[in-house]
Amino acid sequence: MAKKYTTPYEVAYYDGDITRRMTIPAMLAVVIKTSEEQSDALNRGSDYVASFGLGWVITNYEIHITRLPRVGEKINVTTQAMAYNKYFCYRNFWIHDQQGNECVLIKSTFVLMDQENRKMSSVLPEIIEPYESEKITKIYRGEKIEKIENGQFLPYRVRYFDIDGNQHVNNAIYFNWLLDVLGYDFLATHEPTFINVKFDKEVEYGQMVESHYEMLDDQDQIVTRHEIQIDGQIYCEANMTWKKSQ
Amino acid sequence: MAKKYTTPYEVAYYDGDITRRMTIPAMLAVVIKTSEEQSDALNRGSDYVASFGLGWVITNYEIHITRLPRVGEKINVTTQAMAYNKYFCYRNFWIHDQQGNECVLIKSTFVLMDQENRKMSSVLPEIIEPYESEKITKIYRGEKIEKIENGQFLPYRVRYFDIDGNQHVNNAIYFNWLLDVLGYDFLATHEPTFINVKFDKEVEYGQMVESHYEMLDDQDQIVTRHEIQIDGQIYCEANMTWKKSQ
Repeated sequence: MAKKYTTPYEVAYYDGDITRRMTIPAMLAVVIKTSEEQSDALNRGSDYVASFGLGWVITNYEIHITRLPRVGEKINVTTQAMAYNKYFCYRNFWIHDQQGNECVLIKSTFVLMDQENRKMSSVLPEIIEPYESEKITKIYRGEKIEKIENGQFLPYRVRYFDIDGNQHVNNAIYFNWLLDVLGYDFLATHEPTFINVKFDKEVEYGQMVESHYEMLDDQDQIVTRHEIQIDGQIYCEANMTWKKSQ
Repeated sequence: MAKKYTTPYEVAYYDGDITRRMTIPAMLAVVIKTSEEQSDALNRGSDYVASFGLGWVITNYEIHITRLPRVGEKINVTTQAMAYNKYFCYRNFWIHDQQGNECVLIKSTFVLMDQENRKMSSVLPEIIEPYESEKITKIYRGEKIEKIENGQFLPYRVRYFDIDGNQHVNNAIYFNWLLDVLGYDFLATHEPTFINVKFDKEVEYGQMVESHYEMLDDQDQIVTRHEIQIDGQIYCEANMTWKKSQ
């Protein structure tokens, strides 16, 4: 069994939206911090990875939400590097409340990217070994992301504070664009229960992105489909399932 | 002497910009959290204030920066409600590093706002008493904010995640607009040493703001002047002094 790493967190007011539930961007920022802490504790922090000319990039999140943590709530964030094959590393995150109930499960895929040519590298044993995750040959194919058929969009300019120390837009920021287009009235009254998102290309400072979306109102659940596009090319795609907030 | 309240904080990767220094929006979010913690500890949290139909609003920050904390650094955030008069409460914040050096001093002005009609209320003794701050008659007039003479601007749409539990744009978000217009090349190579900002009107969801700015390059320091405008009206104004990053 791969090593688990848990860190406590108290949801700050600035992690919450107008409903005082933790936002998806804030949640992702906090869970990624936990994986960075695990890596640092195993002496496999970003400096070590960079010494091979590499950096971690997240290509996919599958987010299963039982309930979103609330502002002021104390949560535990747990992460575990589950398995890896030649190119892909599969890492899970869990958020539990004080009673030990699972609030959120996130399945993610990480790849190592060459910092010079931005191409994928095979997984290096030196980097992955201390996590004690299972080596597998199978490539995990997540649930298919359905394409937009009749979409609408809003434009967003990539801002200075959207990019991080790696000079690229932080994955959490995509959710500002993905979600903002859904509008106040919808977001204030609905919560996501499932999000499947795939990051295809890296967005850079100064680019204008279009956040496309389509809403499908089934009998008992609402589904939204999303694409982040630049010049007609898809940079990120997502499907989300929603419920009415209580 | 008014009560001081200190809370430790470790600067997270998501608090940093591409230079891995703490951003101004992240810094303000963290210092305000400290004052909220003090208020909660004194049983004067936002629920208590709301029981009078009131809420705190910040009208001014004067930010003196010796150096910006770095990602991974452990800091101490201290706050003290210094003094108040009939309408204005003056609160200081300090950020100290592990060696006890002052990194940042922030002088702020808070007012109580009626939640119904958004008008200023006089300071209620019940609310202010436990902080043990000094009652004064003097009104503190901060340094004058110089107006833009020959400005440029970029437009920004207020997004869902820009508004907080009070249904208004959080003060920290204004700095995304104020700073982003200065551009990557400038922001990646300069640090603010002094910021004087005044919040005149509240910005709401869905509005389009214009972030106007002008840069004055004196012999040994760079000064920027800023205005957030909507339909030609000033909502926020600021002056900043900058130095080249080391």
